[in-house]
Amino acid sequence: MDKAVEAGRGPSKTVEAISWTPSGGVRLLDQTRLPQEEAYVEVRSIDGMVEAIGALRVRGAPLIGIAAAMGLTAAAADAVRRDAFEPQWMQDGVRRLAAARPTAVNLTWALERVARAAKDAFDHGDDPSTVVEALRAEANDIWREEVERCRTIGEAGAPLLPKGARILTHCNTGALAAAGIGTALGIVRVAHERDRSIHVTSCETRPLNQGARLTTWELVRDGIPCRAIVDSAAAWLMARGEIDVVLVGADRVAANGDVANKIGTYALAVAARQHGIPFYVAIPCSTIDMDVAGGAEIPIEVRSGGEILTAPGAEAHNPAFDVTPAELVTAIVTDRGVIEAPYDLSLRRLFD
Amino acid sequence: MDKAVEAGRGPSKTVEAISWTPSGGVRLLDQTRLPQEEAYVEVRSIDGMVEAIGALRVRGAPLIGIAAAMGLTAAAADAVRRDAFEPQWMQDGVRRLAAARPTAVNLTWALERVARAAKDAFDHGDDPSTVVEALRAEANDIWREEVERCRTIGEAGAPLLPKGARILTHCNTGALAAAGIGTALGIVRVAHERDRSIHVTSCETRPLNQGARLTTWELVRDGIPCRAIVDSAAAWLMARGEIDVVLVGADRVAANGDVANKIGTYALAVAARQHGIPFYVAIPCSTIDMDVAGGAEIPIEVRSGGEILTAPGAEAHNPAFDVTPAELVTAIVTDRGVIEAPYDLSLRRLFD
Repeated sequence: MDKAVEAGRGPSKTVEAISWTPSGGVRLLDQTRLPQEEAYVEVRSIDGMVEAIGALRVRGAPLIGIAAAMGLTAAAADAVRRDAFEPQWMQDGVRRLAAARPTAVNLTWALERVARAAKDAFDHGDDPSTVVEALRAEANDIWREEVERCRTIGEAGAPLLPKGARILTHCNTGALAAAGIGTALGIVRVAHERDRSIHVTSCETRPLNQGARLTTWELVRDGIPCRAIVDSAAAWLMARGEIDVVLVGADRVAANGDVANKIGTYALAVAARQHGIPFYVAIPCSTIDMDVAGGAEIPIEVRSGGEILTAPGAEAHNPAFDVTPAELVTAIVTDRGVIEAPYDLSLRRLFD
Repeated sequence: MDKAVEAGRGPSKTVEAISWTPSGGVRLLDQTRLPQEEAYVEVRSIDGMVEAIGALRVRGAPLIGIAAAMGLTAAAADAVRRDAFEPQWMQDGVRRLAAARPTAVNLTWALERVARAAKDAFDHGDDPSTVVEALRAEANDIWREEVERCRTIGEAGAPLLPKGARILTHCNTGALAAAGIGTALGIVRVAHERDRSIHVTSCETRPLNQGARLTTWELVRDGIPCRAIVDSAAAWLMARGEIDVVLVGADRVAANGDVANKIGTYALAVAARQHGIPFYVAIPCSTIDMDVAGGAEIPIEVRSGGEILTAPGAEAHNPAFDVTPAELVTAIVTDRGVIEAPYDLSLRRLFD
């Protein structure tokens, strides 16, 4: 056995961004401490999970859906022990978790799924412990399905990348964002497995540097050639002919194909169109919100200006997401296949 | 008298980014330490000024021209004291200072001016001390002229801003970049003096944050309403209708009107065009390089990848400048008036 690995310092390809602890708590890789340290936190309360999601210890649209479902389950088990577990407790917990971050629809989507499972069990007259088991089973289903979806997205998207593709990506859409191999990075991984000689340019992704901190961390572990750039250099690299394709994830896709994703995505889409470069969005179907007609209706989280260092007395405006109109999106890669414009029709067909 | 001001802690509108010390050294406000501290360094050698320019203690195209001229003068005075001052010393000093940063043409332009003044004095048979006085006089002329040019640029550009204009700017183009009131920020200052009710959005300007650190610092001191954003949010704010005009400086303008400026400028120009927003460049004529036909010939500095925090083992690609093609530039505001396309003709006319 390799000594470094034995000592726990060596590289490992397995990233467990989320898992259960033996006692039923949720173990999260604290993403705010990467890449400097691989540190974990255990969460077993609603407050703890709201904090972890709000502070981006756990992040990425699919992963915060999974984390919320698992966190609700862990907290419910504790409530059972305190004899406090009842439908009202559930509703309150779901409401607080759903409010932790507003933009990613996966959060409410996953919470609705586990809440429905619990309600069915309550309605069936199950005792609290059995209801918690129903919660846990549903949370595990969501987790497992999201892992499978990433693989399916990867398989569906890899053929879109030409051999030797120089890919530009934004934020982090890998195992740290989605469980499994990731969404946009899932496509990158499958293409790499198939020896497509790809190269990834990762935008830094200000203000919290998920691209420079997390995407490069995942890619280096997997031996995928990559480099980081400042966000504002992307258009210039396109002009220099150094980018063949833009590949991003999303936090919510509206029924018309408008894409809410990390701030800076829209600027990349505008620049890609200017340079005739394809712009692909990779998502599990859990990220599609058919109840929202267009991007203007998607709530955009504005985070604290304190994330941007300014001179004393100066304000900072810090929207965390933006909306890319469907007309700038070349195709959306989902776990149900690759869809193209007109998105209102192609998205509706996915759910029929 | 206000106590805080008396104690030296209060706000002051005067920024002395550069000055002479009583003993003939160059006193620089160390811009790498702003906004946390207002600290100064004294430079009196070629090596010291090369380090200060390379490390961005002093920065901004016009200001590094002034700094190089003053640094050469201070070092020459020391060389006289050591009996080492001669034409060969001059040539060597000019060569090393000119290589400190490659993109801004002001550096070589200013050095050529002082070198010519020294050569004339040498040719005239002046003794070394008199040659140094010729150097100092020329450096002071450059400094004074650049201060005057900023005021002229400000007066020329202010009428371009509609009342209530919401201005987007990038990097720092103020008193910390150009002496006097600045170039693009000079226009902002004159518009503010004229009560045009302007508001400035300053891009953070990664990786060294000159916009968030320095531009907000200057604007807060002057009481000009402003906010910082991450660079990648600019296009999104344009899409939301929150920006009326983009106003930037430049490090070198080619004979055809192509504009080399801080990385990210090109992305702003592409987004501005997409949204029908005017894109103005403000420069002293010392920034125009008629010896360079187009942007492709301008050397682009690539700085250390260490300025971008990545995961261990990952590379970063860190170009410090980009080129915006003339066709995306609405107008160039100079100290000789506002010029428009076709830039090859209008720029040539400036120098005739």
